[in-house]
Parts: sequence; structure tokens; C-alpha cells
Amino acid sequence: MAKKNKHTSALHEKKGVSDPEITNISHINKFKKKRKAQPDAQSLTQDIISGDITALSRAITLVESTNPTHYKKASEIIKQCLEHANNSTRIGITGVPGVGKSTFIEAFGEYLTSQGKKVAVLAVDPSSSVTKGSILGDKTRMEALVNNPNAFIRPSASGNSLGGVARKTREAIILCEAAGFDTIIIETVGVGQSETAVHSMVDFFLLLKLARAGDELQGIKRGIIEMADAIAINKADGDNIKAAKLAKVEFNRALHLYPEKASGWTPKVTLCSALQKEGIDDIWKIISEYLTKTKTNGYFEHNRLEQNKFWLTQTIEEQLKQRFFNHEVIKKALATQLQLIEDNKTTPFAAAEYLLNLEKDL
Amino acid sequence: MAKKNKHTSALHEKKGVSDPEITNISHINKFKKKRKAQPDAQSLTQDIISGDITALSRAITLVESTNPTHYKKASEIIKQCLEHANNSTRIGITGVPGVGKSTFIEAFGEYLTSQGKKVAVLAVDPSSSVTKGSILGDKTRMEALVNNPNAFIRPSASGNSLGGVARKTREAIILCEAAGFDTIIIETVGVGQSETAVHSMVDFFLLLKLARAGDELQGIKRGIIEMADAIAINKADGDNIKAAKLAKVEFNRALHLYPEKASGWTPKVTLCSALQKEGIDDIWKIISEYLTKTKTNGYFEHNRLEQNKFWLTQTIEEQLKQRFFNHEVIKKALATQLQLIEDNKTTPFAAAEYLLNLEKDL
Repeated sequence: MAKKNKHTSALHEKKGVSDPEITNISHINKFKKKRKAQPDAQSLTQDIISGDITALSRAITLVESTNPTHYKKASEIIKQCLEHANNSTRIGITGVPGVGKSTFIEAFGEYLTSQGKKVAVLAVDPSSSVTKGSILGDKTRMEALVNNPNAFIRPSASGNSLGGVARKTREAIILCEAAGFDTIIIETVGVGQSETAVHSMVDFFLLLKLARAGDELQGIKRGIIEMADAIAINKADGDNIKAAKLAKVEFNRALHLYPEKASGWTPKVTLCSALQKEGIDDIWKIISEYLTKTKTNGYFEHNRLEQNKFWLTQTIEEQLKQRFFNHEVIKKALATQLQLIEDNKTTPFAAAEYLLNLEKDL
Repeated sequence: MAKKNKHTSALHEKKGVSDPEITNISHINKFKKKRKAQPDAQSLTQDIISGDITALSRAITLVESTNPTHYKKASEIIKQCLEHANNSTRIGITGVPGVGKSTFIEAFGEYLTSQGKKVAVLAVDPSSSVTKGSILGDKTRMEALVNNPNAFIRPSASGNSLGGVARKTREAIILCEAAGFDTIIIETVGVGQSETAVHSMVDFFLLLKLARAGDELQGIKRGIIEMADAIAINKADGDNIKAAKLAKVEFNRALHLYPEKASGWTPKVTLCSALQKEGIDDIWKIISEYLTKTKTNGYFEHNRLEQNKFWLTQTIEEQLKQRFFNHEVIKKALATQLQLIEDNKTTPFAAAEYLLNLEKDL
């Protein structure tokens, strides 16, 4: 097999054919100059607000950059965009792999744009990277939406920490809103803690399920069913309809076991077939009802404010921990204290006190 | 009603009868001197190690005190006790109110002492206070165990924060172990986060359940079933036996849905009747099997070390947060930043950065 596939790569270079030499210096300089002429924060912001998608993409790239200069520029842009942001509906969508998220988002996005909405699709997936195929990474799975002028799709920012990815996504939301997108869809994979992060940045949380999936225990255990404002049972088509209807009854029963939500909203269960584009309008109807209810009873605004407080506190706490535990002096002292604990010479509490006092004097 | 009860208090003072004057000054001085003559840390430690229960009680009182002088003394005692501690089996017991925890602990404690064990019973209940009737608060519910010379019962330390109560309990464990108690039972109520705290300080975690209680969803949701090393279905007596046997089958099935435990132990489900003192020996048999297994495969030691690390990190993180958010300058600046967020003038992340930089210069 290995031998057979040896020359199948399109990148294979034939022996004896070397790269042509670049001789046109003026061309190179022109290219370099163009590269340098990056627009400043002010003009990028102006372009974003006027709805320029290229400017939006560039700004999100700056947000995602690990280069401090880039990030400083991104912060300026975000600050200027803030007064043009916040006027959107933020919808979180989760579901285990195989539930049909991409197909659903494509159908849902198409429906929304047909209703005159401008839709941005972002993703939170801390496990994503260039090498791993990840959600939204393969835009070809949403071909129609990619080519839709009223839709903007951006794969998940890469990064190892959920906090980092979540921050970048929260900032991308602001930029998309400033660029005029009125419906923001945040997709997440149904694994790990990413649902909780997404739940903390959206107005409405939609859980996609399959009939007879048998993963109800996982959903309950990880608190995902508790977070859902609606459960849509996807692939409710063909032979599957009967099982889907049964699942609807069961999820409705399960939802009644939970206490009433702070939003005053009773979570709904609905059926859909993203493939057949059926039941998609029902989901938007549910979301509209939710928006009317929570904007009337004040929960909508209250929730956004609480989310901001949550991210503020979360960021500070994470930074405090990092500062402390990454300090070289603390690192060494911590190792010593851990050894003392292991040798029954000190308690975790006495060791903590010692380390905290040590840090005060640094 | 109010009028009728006006004079029913034993503390009611009759008019015209005033307190007798204290004339014996020498008596007062004697009393004061005795009060002052509190044993020092060194001698208290000696008494604890020799198994003196009064000294143990005194030391725990010092641990629970909010007076810094007392606490300093307590720390010295704990440090000296450490090398005599750790040689016990620490068992966590939880279950919702009504499951029969007190009756169970009484029966279990009696059984253990009859087997030559020395049993200390502590509790973690952050909601407990003098006014609220709380677990272990009413020792009369464990009358036999209270009067058992080989048992020591201590109600939950009071306090508003779970972290504070947990710390006091962890330190009380060390003192009890130094005093020669070889089996430490930590009781907790089946509400709030206290189970997680108790789970992080014991070797074995026992969940008490009732047949047909219908609170399985809660248990799964809050991860309690996942933490259990054994589930004992209590009140399996009389007409209840059939239902209890059925519940046993169901819990066994539920437990199989969880991944294998790091301990390599497969959780067991068993029936008991604390009232009839039936099935109690089976529970001890299960715990003994667990101890043999985890002491052989190294998990027992590993787990205690991990628990120590957990409490060390936990304590530091809590203190870092408190230090930061309780600082007067930060408090004021935080209020300003929250207002700026509400007015769309800044983001939670920019605000966090501002506050963290502010704190650096304090």
C-alpha cells in the first residue's frame, strides 16, 4: 500500500524541476508594501460598521492573534465597536457529533436569511486546531450558507484553554454585531465544558438530539438538559418519525422534573428534519416567543448583564491563579510544601497559608 | 396564645426577687484563675495523643474558633499531631433528610465498636448554626453511641462558607486520628455542595437511599451517584423489602452506565435496615474489600495525596479571590467598571485587565 501511494500527492515534486528564480524585485517590493499597509484600528472599525466583511474577518484575526501588538489593536477596535454592538439575538446550538449540527445550521441559517436576517455563525471548540478536523472547520459542509451574502461563517478560534477560546468568541460576537449581523449562532460540540461556556454567552440555548440516542444520562449528568431553552429532535423524517415523537414525549416529561427557570420560560421540545428542511420555522417561532417573553419580563437584559459579570469575574480569577502558580518562587516553594504534606509534616491549609504569605512579600 | 405562654419560661424572673450578691471574692478569683489556666499547645497535644477525650474536644473547639490566638494555638497542636494521624479509615456518609442517617450511624457505630474499633463521627453542614436544628446537633438521636466509651461524636462546625467548615472538619479528622480513633465517619446532608467537599476528604463514600424515593434524577444530576463507592438502600424491612430489592437491581443497572472508577473499584449496592440493625455487617464487609483492593493497587495512598493537593489549591484560590475582591480600592473600581460594562463602554475582558493592573500597583 505504501508503495502504491508514494506518488499520489498533488504536492509531489518531480526530480529535476526546481523552483523558478524570482527576478522581478519591483514586484516583490510592491507586494511587501501592500502587506505593510494594514489599515489602522480607526479605519478598520469604520469599515466594520459599514458592513465590510473583509474588515470584519481581519479584525477577528487580530482578536485571535497571540501577538500582543495585534491584540492591542483588536482591543481598540472592540472598544469602538461596542456602541454599535449588542443589538442581536445570540443563539447557542449544541449536540453530540452525528446529531446533524452542520446540516441544521445550514438549514436554519438559510431560513433566517430568507426572513431578512443577517446571520453570523461562530463556534467554540477548544479542541480544534489546524490539523484536527473540527466543527465549522470544513466549510464545505455548509456550502449554501457560505455563499449566502447575508451569512458570515467563522470557524472556532484555536487555543488550548476554554477560557481563551471563549474570550475570543465573545469578542468576535461584538465585532459581528457591529458589522450589522442581527442573529449570531454559536455552535459547540457536545463534549467537555464548552456548553457551559457557550450557555454563558447566548440569549437562547438550543439542544439538538436524536430519537433513541440513549445519551440522556450524559445530558442530565452534565447539566446540558437543564441549560436548554428548547430541545429539537433532529432527523425526524422517514421511518424515524414515530421514534422522534416518542422521544418528544419523554423529553417533555424529563424537563418537568427540573425547577422553573429564572427566565420564567418553560423549555419546549420540538421535532425537525434539517435534511428535509422541516420544522425549522417552528424553532424560530419558539425563539421569537422566548425573546418576547424575556424582553417583557426583563430577564433578557438582566441575563446579559449577569453574563458580563460572570466573564469579568471568571477572567480575573483565572488570571489571579495563573499569576500565583506561574511565579518561579512559588513554583519552587509549592514543590517543597507538597513534599512536606506527603511526609506528614504539614497540612494543606498550613501550606496554603505559608505560600500566600510568601507571595505577599514578592 | 401569647398571653398564656407569658410565664412558661424557666428563665422567668419573679418580681421582687433579685440576684443574690456575690460576696466571696476569693471564690471569684479562684474561678478566674482556673479559667486562665488553659493548658498550652504542648500539653494539650500530649493529652490528645494519650487518648484524652476532653483534650480532644478542647482542641477541636480551638480549631473552630474565630479568635486568631485560638487558631494559632490550634495550628501548633495540629502540626504536632500530624505524625500520629493518618492511620484511620475515613468514611463519608450522605443521604437526603429522612433516609435515616442518624439511625444508620448509630447502628454502624455500635457495630464498629463491637468489633473493637474506635469511632469518631464528624459532620459537614455549612447551613448549621445554633438556632437551626441540624445534623448531629441533636445528639439524643444517637443516644447509645453518645454513651459508648469508644465513640466520639462532634456536631458540624458552624460557619457560612463551605470552605471554612470543610477546613475545620479536615483538621478535626487529624486530631481524632491522633487521639486514637481508627474509623472516622463524616456525615453530610444530601443538599448543596457539601457532598463534594466530604468526598474530597474521605477514603470511602457511602450513599444512603430509600426504595421508591424518586430522587434518582437529582442524584445523577449532582454527580452524587457517580461519587458513591457503595449505595445502601436503608429501611429494607417489613413491607419495604420487595421495593428495596427492586431498587437494588435498578441502582446496579444505573451504576453500570458510568465509566470505571480511578480506584479500580466497582461500586456495590446493598440493602440494610438501620432500625432492625440488619445488613450493617455487610456494609463493613464491602468497605473492608474496598480497603484491601485500594491499598494493594496503590489508589488509597494516591487518593489521599490528591486530596491534600486539592485542599491546598482550593484554599489558595479562595484566598486569592478574597484578597482581591475585598480590597477597598478594587471594590470601588469594580463598581465603576461594572457600570461602564452596563453602558457598553467596555468589555468584561478589558475591565478585568484594568482591575488586574490596578491591583498590581497596590
